[in-house]
Amino acid sequence: VTGERIIEFFFDIGSPYSYLAATQVEQVGRRTDAEIRWRPFLLGGVFKSSGNPAPAAVAAKVRYMVTDLERWAAHYGVPFKLASRFPLNTLQAQRVLIAAGRSDPHTVPPLSLALFEAYWADDRDISDIEEIARIADTVGLDGRGLAAMGSDPAVKDQLKAVTAEAVERGAFGAPTFFVGSEMFFGNDRLDFVERACEAL
Amino acid sequence: VTGERIIEFFFDIGSPYSYLAATQVEQVGRRTDAEIRWRPFLLGGVFKSSGNPAPAAVAAKVRYMVTDLERWAAHYGVPFKLASRFPLNTLQAQRVLIAAGRSDPHTVPPLSLALFEAYWADDRDISDIEEIARIADTVGLDGRGLAAMGSDPAVKDQLKAVTAEAVERGAFGAPTFFVGSEMFFGNDRLDFVERACEAL
Repeated sequence: VTGERIIEFFFDIGSPYSYLAATQVEQVGRRTDAEIRWRPFLLGGVFKSSGNPAPAAVAAKVRYMVTDLERWAAHYGVPFKLASRFPLNTLQAQRVLIAAGRSDPHTVPPLSLALFEAYWADDRDISDIEEIARIADTVGLDGRGLAAMGSDPAVKDQLKAVTAEAVERGAFGAPTFFVGSEMFFGNDRLDFVERACEAL
Repeated sequence: VTGERIIEFFFDIGSPYSYLAATQVEQVGRRTDAEIRWRPFLLGGVFKSSGNPAPAAVAAKVRYMVTDLERWAAHYGVPFKLASRFPLNTLQAQRVLIAAGRSDPHTVPPLSLALFEAYWADDRDISDIEEIARIADTVGLDGRGLAAMGSDPAVKDQLKAVTAEAVERGAFGAPTFFVGSEMFFGNDRLDFVERACEAL
């Protein structure tokens, strides 16, 4: 990685399309020699600030979304099981990710993937701080310590700031990618993200 | 075309992603040996029946959508210019397409493409029945005659019936494709449509 190509990846563990993108984005980075910046934000805050109603509001859309998610998971060859708790409050999970990033940015991708899999493949309750701590332990982190750090005011403020930054730059959902000032919305735009990197 | 593979393509001239899909769908058909059934419906009716708010309701989404449309048009190598009248009433255009299909189904693809280009490349007012008639003339049809047929109660009823059928089968937007009972939403799912045909 030269440091010149950067893909910012804004995501929330509660978003199934963020999960799908998370399983692929590092491969996109390797193919394009780009660094991936994993940027946890709060999707509920994005919906609220941008005035975007959550997709769960339209019944036909939700039915189709489940099929669409299963197709993408099959296409990528990754496990997927619709979470029995959906939507769910991801505030603590996102705060723990911010806390992890403050301690060591390199822990964010493995912890994010572990949380995504717990929720979107193993149907675990990632709104529960004890469960979050156990998942962090499995990737070699100090789960209890991170859970405690999650309630630090500086961590809370940073999650709000990242969310506000994304909305300010044009985000209205998740996942959202940036290549410089170019914004891309959705797992299904990873091809365009890749092409934008290649064009740099 | 063997007649065994069929892609149903539900579209509205007022939908820019329907335009993009319309420029590609026959190529998908040729590659997969599938017949394309061009099925004009009324997107406004679909939004109303399914309870789906039109995307134009969220400012950040609209700004992004314009960029996204320009990226797809460049990717496909087709002209695109955001219509100065958007959204606009497509009731008469969709009725004329139904009328054309009743006279000769083979006229629907060329007439649809001519209307799409008039609206999404040349910024013409396709809510105006005189303009619709002139566009029909350019593809060798009797524009005046089709415009008159558009107000036939049987044509109006058929447009309502096609729209109701799409909603009944799960549609909530445009373009919507069916391969048998499998539904696909959006220009960006043409790859999945193609794979579904290949799997038949």
